[in-house]
Amino acid sequence: MHDFPSLGIVNSFITLWPFNMEGTKWKRKSIVTAALTILTSSQAILIVWSKRAGKYEYSVTTANFLVEALKCALSLAALARIWRSEGVTEDNRLSTTLDEVIVYPIPAFLYLVKNLLQYYIFQYVDAPGYQILKNLNIISTGILYRIILKKKLSSIQWAAFILLCAGCTTAQLDPSSDRVLQTPFQGWLMAIVMALFSGFAGVYTEAIMKKRPSRNINVQNFWLYVFGMIFNVVAILVQDFDAVVEKGFFHGYSLITVLMILNHALSGIAVSMVMKYADNIVKVYATSVAMLLTAFVSFLFFGFQFSTAFLLGSIVVSVSIYLHSNGGVQRQQ
Amino acid sequence: MHDFPSLGIVNSFITLWPFNMEGTKWKRKSIVTAALTILTSSQAILIVWSKRAGKYEYSVTTANFLVEALKCALSLAALARIWRSEGVTEDNRLSTTLDEVIVYPIPAFLYLVKNLLQYYIFQYVDAPGYQILKNLNIISTGILYRIILKKKLSSIQWAAFILLCAGCTTAQLDPSSDRVLQTPFQGWLMAIVMALFSGFAGVYTEAIMKKRPSRNINVQNFWLYVFGMIFNVVAILVQDFDAVVEKGFFHGYSLITVLMILNHALSGIAVSMVMKYADNIVKVYATSVAMLLTAFVSFLFFGFQFSTAFLLGSIVVSVSIYLHSNGGVQRQQ
Repeated sequence: MHDFPSLGIVNSFITLWPFNMEGTKWKRKSIVTAALTILTSSQAILIVWSKRAGKYEYSVTTANFLVEALKCALSLAALARIWRSEGVTEDNRLSTTLDEVIVYPIPAFLYLVKNLLQYYIFQYVDAPGYQILKNLNIISTGILYRIILKKKLSSIQWAAFILLCAGCTTAQLDPSSDRVLQTPFQGWLMAIVMALFSGFAGVYTEAIMKKRPSRNINVQNFWLYVFGMIFNVVAILVQDFDAVVEKGFFHGYSLITVLMILNHALSGIAVSMVMKYADNIVKVYATSVAMLLTAFVSFLFFGFQFSTAFLLGSIVVSVSIYLHSNGGVQRQQ
Repeated sequence: MHDFPSLGIVNSFITLWPFNMEGTKWKRKSIVTAALTILTSSQAILIVWSKRAGKYEYSVTTANFLVEALKCALSLAALARIWRSEGVTEDNRLSTTLDEVIVYPIPAFLYLVKNLLQYYIFQYVDAPGYQILKNLNIISTGILYRIILKKKLSSIQWAAFILLCAGCTTAQLDPSSDRVLQTPFQGWLMAIVMALFSGFAGVYTEAIMKKRPSRNINVQNFWLYVFGMIFNVVAILVQDFDAVVEKGFFHGYSLITVLMILNHALSGIAVSMVMKYADNIVKVYATSVAMLLTAFVSFLFFGFQFSTAFLLGSIVVSVSIYLHSNGGVQRQQ
């Protein structure tokens, strides 16, 4: 059963067994979730900031490659420290069997297919419409999480999940949103296929990370990111080879680009941790909260205006979070 | 405890005790709720129809008076039938004590104050903004229901109630809705005060109807509507006296006007029945569903377009209904 605990249960843990296993697990889960939320929203804020600061003509594929390389380096650094303190064990050694490593390229491959489809969907929907349709990811993740990982959500938690999708979409509504209903059949189909690819990649990553719970996460990350690097080398060769040869690898990089690469690398590691210590459902909630947080920070620092739709969507998302975490407990008020 | 049963419980009733007291109660509750929903939405459809058919210059106060008079007549007719079949008893006799009757003018008075305030709030908000702010009634009804009638809702049902308010508001959003956030403080204050008056009138009516459960509902209605007639005579004298003297009482009446009066009278009686056999929470849900039903019928017959906001709001309202009716039961799916 999915076991995101209610606040009441959390309090009991803190009061009664401050150092027990469950308490430690919950603490780790909370920290990685909070980290993912903050990193995701600061990522969006960096994008807003970089747009305000003017357009930077760096190649996205080289930046993506550097993100994967940085994550790889960070995983190796963490491993080196662990090897020094604990020695090399069966769980933290880098060498692996073909049987273990063969599944690692699959998430990277699924994301690649999804990103390729992204170029075609814009023949049927515009960018704001695509933002709205992307919320289908929430539903596809829930369904695949149930089917593939065979984990259960209570009926209240399912209701909460539908609300999360509706609330996020409501928060993103603007006067142009009604066009999304005129999306042709092919557009809807592609949006659904993309949502399934994205959901499947997430669920598959969780399955990999949890398959061997005792396996050190840094080893798992290392292999995941190695394949990420390989896929991005292919992307550079296909898409930006000429630009890189002509203008150089780091052409157009600025402070913001460097910050964005750093941030992407850290959020990538946070996603892996959420997959290992929490699950896809927690990830979806974290990224949704990050969206609201981003709007709030943009409101404070960039003079954005709140729309009525944003406020209503935020209320629905908040109730969804409450229902999700309290969905297993029935209380009278 | 508020006891709108879940589908599971309902099924048990139907299967195990088809003719017991609880089953009959639930059946009666369902019928009056369905009647109120259908009457409320057909009311809105009549308004749409009458606007399409052109403006009719009848005086609203005379129509309101006729609604009260018709309800009074229908209550008396029902009573006459009961007297013939059952004879006059303590519970169905029309004569009453001052102690019983003294509370009956209060709901009519509260509605009058609310309607007077309505004229002033338009200094601060426009009509679409007022439609949005009216959803505060949902919250005020829930709070007063809890405080005055001392009935309990589970935490899931509270969450459902917040969602009902957010969902109804979302469904009504249009590109002009963002102006509502610019409502000045006095506008918000008046909207809140009006919501409290409206909620208080509803909760007070429920208290009156339920104070003596064995008292025949037609007697209670008769007294409620007598005071309604009196208040409306005052309204005619103050607002439309000259028009009635010059052009006559029925000036400007059409078939649609007559249908609207009939409909208002029947929905008035349905509201009384919901108050006696169900409660204010059920009433709020019934009128919310009626709003969605109205939009759906308008879509089918008047060529209205659904907006993305309407679809999202409908999803949130549907989940709210599900959560409300299942809020007491916890199931694994």
